[in-house]
Amino acid sequence: MTEVLTVDHRRLEELAASMLAMQDVPEADAERIAACLVLADLRGLPSHGIARLPVYAERLRRGLVKPRPNLNLDEPTPVCARLDGDDGFGFVIATRAMDEAMERAQTYGIGMISAFRSTHFGMAACYLLQAVEKGFAAFIFTNASPAMPVWGGREPFLGTSPFAFAAPGTDKVPSIVLDMATSVVARGKIRRAAAKGEPIPEGWALDKEGNPTTDARAAYEGIVLPLAGPKGSGLSLMMEVMGGVMSGAAFAGRVGNQYKDFDAPQNVGHTFVAIRPDVFVGQDYAARMEELVRRAKSSTPIDAAQPVLMPGEPEALREAENRRKGVEMPADVAEALRQEASRLGIRIDDF
Amino acid sequence: MTEVLTVDHRRLEELAASMLAMQDVPEADAERIAACLVLADLRGLPSHGIARLPVYAERLRRGLVKPRPNLNLDEPTPVCARLDGDDGFGFVIATRAMDEAMERAQTYGIGMISAFRSTHFGMAACYLLQAVEKGFAAFIFTNASPAMPVWGGREPFLGTSPFAFAAPGTDKVPSIVLDMATSVVARGKIRRAAAKGEPIPEGWALDKEGNPTTDARAAYEGIVLPLAGPKGSGLSLMMEVMGGVMSGAAFAGRVGNQYKDFDAPQNVGHTFVAIRPDVFVGQDYAARMEELVRRAKSSTPIDAAQPVLMPGEPEALREAENRRKGVEMPADVAEALRQEASRLGIRIDDF
Repeated sequence: MTEVLTVDHRRLEELAASMLAMQDVPEADAERIAACLVLADLRGLPSHGIARLPVYAERLRRGLVKPRPNLNLDEPTPVCARLDGDDGFGFVIATRAMDEAMERAQTYGIGMISAFRSTHFGMAACYLLQAVEKGFAAFIFTNASPAMPVWGGREPFLGTSPFAFAAPGTDKVPSIVLDMATSVVARGKIRRAAAKGEPIPEGWALDKEGNPTTDARAAYEGIVLPLAGPKGSGLSLMMEVMGGVMSGAAFAGRVGNQYKDFDAPQNVGHTFVAIRPDVFVGQDYAARMEELVRRAKSSTPIDAAQPVLMPGEPEALREAENRRKGVEMPADVAEALRQEASRLGIRIDDF
Repeated sequence: MTEVLTVDHRRLEELAASMLAMQDVPEADAERIAACLVLADLRGLPSHGIARLPVYAERLRRGLVKPRPNLNLDEPTPVCARLDGDDGFGFVIATRAMDEAMERAQTYGIGMISAFRSTHFGMAACYLLQAVEKGFAAFIFTNASPAMPVWGGREPFLGTSPFAFAAPGTDKVPSIVLDMATSVVARGKIRRAAAKGEPIPEGWALDKEGNPTTDARAAYEGIVLPLAGPKGSGLSLMMEVMGGVMSGAAFAGRVGNQYKDFDAPQNVGHTFVAIRPDVFVGQDYAARMEELVRRAKSSTPIDAAQPVLMPGEPEALREAENRRKGVEMPADVAEALRQEASRLGIRIDDF
């Protein structure tokens, strides 16, 4: 059993922001990155949370992520633009891209921004929430380093890139926030299980030789399987097209792995589509969305103790709880943070 | 065992077009509808093929589908428009909507058309192919009559609406054409199994009382389960938002069932997004797409006899074969067609 600490999320945000700022990341960017990381922890996705800070720091030190990228926007049409991320933090590039997409959607009903020369942007839901908080629906497409076979193949080729869609709720009903890996499970879950020495269920992954395994370490060295076979494989191929082929980023198995490839920047590609959900129905949108969510949630539950929830609602409930109770952090993650902090001359006394 | 006939696809197209034209459908529309139906048969999706002609004819007779709808386009922005389908054939509305989306994408890089007061549009791939043949990537969203529970619920609420994306290939590599039901299987497959009296695998559906069943009839009367639980449920909720809430169509379980609800038009909603895939990378798109597809297809196959194929490629291969060999049609489908034809005074002698 790994010991688990509980830490207030504000403490973690402040610590992460300080650690990034000490590595020359501008303050506002450091705060945004820290907020995105801790949001993943708050929402129950620790695989995309503060546990990644040491590897981001390492990539900064090696010059594989630039603390002060020169983001450059190319605008072939008034509705579509491409952002050169200049190997900056994916968090910063994604945040800017979603803002730009929303600005265009405000005028045109829809806006599309692709980004190339980007890096891992953490939890896609972070940018979905950015959109719904401003009243926009959004799609996010990203490619990722190879971890999953194309259906019928046995080598890692596709990323486990999430499919991400959101539509804003109202003050009466929650937003729909769908952020789902195209693999059977998020690869981060296998990595966490491997770190904890825990087994994984059958059907999640193959080992290096292409054999089924329940050993998380063998699975992490091997390949995770696509969601529902050809369907997950097809969705991930879509990410390659929308994230990589279209944007000018790396693609087709050539996106660098954050944890393994230290010879070059990752060159991840993303595409962000923002939509004004009231572009056709105007102010009826709110009432229509309320009706959809209310009717869905009033379905008779299979298990009377488990009310029907919208996509993203379990995460939102967990977030609210963790904002009160603090974020759980395994002792090994805390120790890695302490070591990383001490390299920067920051001493952590309180956890 | 049901007897199976083989009929040339041109014969079926001509027959379907004649039957529709005799019911006051304009010739060009009748030909488009016939081509979409037979294309589904050619591509191995008979559940969306000519077997549906009798129910379309019945809905025409009852005035629930208008043969000559007055399609009306509302254009709130230069990039987004909404099409009032006036209860016409979904095939005709979808074809027009995709054309309008492509026209806007040609100028702006992206275009979005929502349609309301539409009806069942058959196989989504039909309009994906319309887009890739003109060099556009596309997304299609549609809602559908309730057939599937929202995750955690036990009543039919969501449609088994397909997720549909395509990106154009080149003369050297096939297009990617992803058209996948958000249910474990397309509901039409259960209907076909029920018609044939064949069992279905476990895990496809629940019966009316919410119990697992392998009886296709019980399953068709019951509910089909979403793909990968909360993920398929989330994708189908997205269809409700993008197809129904946003467009002004029926939604939240209120889209009429083509086979069961004869009191009112269906009021299905769709949204079509066309994208110029070269908007950012220009003429590099073709080479990049070729590299993606070639590299994916050169994966070492798990089964040496089964080469790795792209989404839509098995269907394209089947289509090419069936264009040569003819379309297989169960005797009961042929008989239903003969009866329908004879109501219109058309005698079928050759099958």
